[in-house]
Amino acid sequence: MSGSLARSDRDDVARARTDGALETLVGYNLKRAYMLFQTDFRETMGDDGLTPRSFSALSLVVERPGITQSDVSRCLGIERSGLVAMIDDLERRGHLRRVPVPGDRRVQALQATPDGCAAYDRMLAEVRAHEARVLATLDADERETLVTLLRKLRTARKDQGE
Amino acid sequence: MSGSLARSDRDDVARARTDGALETLVGYNLKRAYMLFQTDFRETMGDDGLTPRSFSALSLVVERPGITQSDVSRCLGIERSGLVAMIDDLERRGHLRRVPVPGDRRVQALQATPDGCAAYDRMLAEVRAHEARVLATLDADERETLVTLLRKLRTARKDQGE
Repeated sequence: MSGSLARSDRDDVARARTDGALETLVGYNLKRAYMLFQTDFRETMGDDGLTPRSFSALSLVVERPGITQSDVSRCLGIERSGLVAMIDDLERRGHLRRVPVPGDRRVQALQATPDGCAAYDRMLAEVRAHEARVLATLDADERETLVTLLRKLRTARKDQGE
Repeated sequence: MSGSLARSDRDDVARARTDGALETLVGYNLKRAYMLFQTDFRETMGDDGLTPRSFSALSLVVERPGITQSDVSRCLGIERSGLVAMIDDLERRGHLRRVPVPGDRRVQALQATPDGCAAYDRMLAEVRAHEARVLATLDADERETLVTLLRKLRTARKDQGE
């Protein structure tokens, strides 16, 4: 509104803070930022595409052949109960299959199919393009800093808890 | 595992990246960070407490007396249809009421009650303490940087869209 073009980002934040408490809360800003990713992710994947969460599960299965459902739920920080339907869906799509674990009949391991691996590679390229779009206004250093801070937050808490 | 205590955060990220594609994706890291906030927020508010989203709605109503439901949904970036049940709940709790808008019988404005304002002030103090807990491992500069980057992402996109 001021007509000045030389406004810094930090000024933007300071100005926004006069709007209300919400804009100063990290949790609120995280959620809003994630909503941008979520919306564009769904548009990228299409109506019948994977959700962010099932893409994450497939990523783990492709990269760690033989991973168990328990490992996937632990790695993603989600309830095992919520994972079963997602694995069922990935199996129905032909992306992975459940295989027996030698020596432990109670556990099944997850194995990506060749088609699943190829589909994952295509989707990963689309997801990287999606991220580049959503992050277009941050430069490379800012993106790196953002990931570093988000990971620091998470890693540190895990260390505290263990 | 290395026994070294002098590992830098950036080394942590580099090391984690060898684990897989997922850890390099901003969307995934945003979601995981937000999950920490969401879990601790719900524990802070208790079983019968407000959700992050209904707390955000109440915050807007307290700070902008007379705001409409459409304005709240637009400000929060959520569907108006999803907002109605949330406003109903806030009204049932006695935090706000719907009041007529002079000159426009189709629209109702939202007005926080004195009890609602007092409850909001108490909750905001609890939410700030909750954020301090979840953010304990980031210093003040890092928190400021995180909010700045999250807001830059969001603000810039809004400018692009308009």
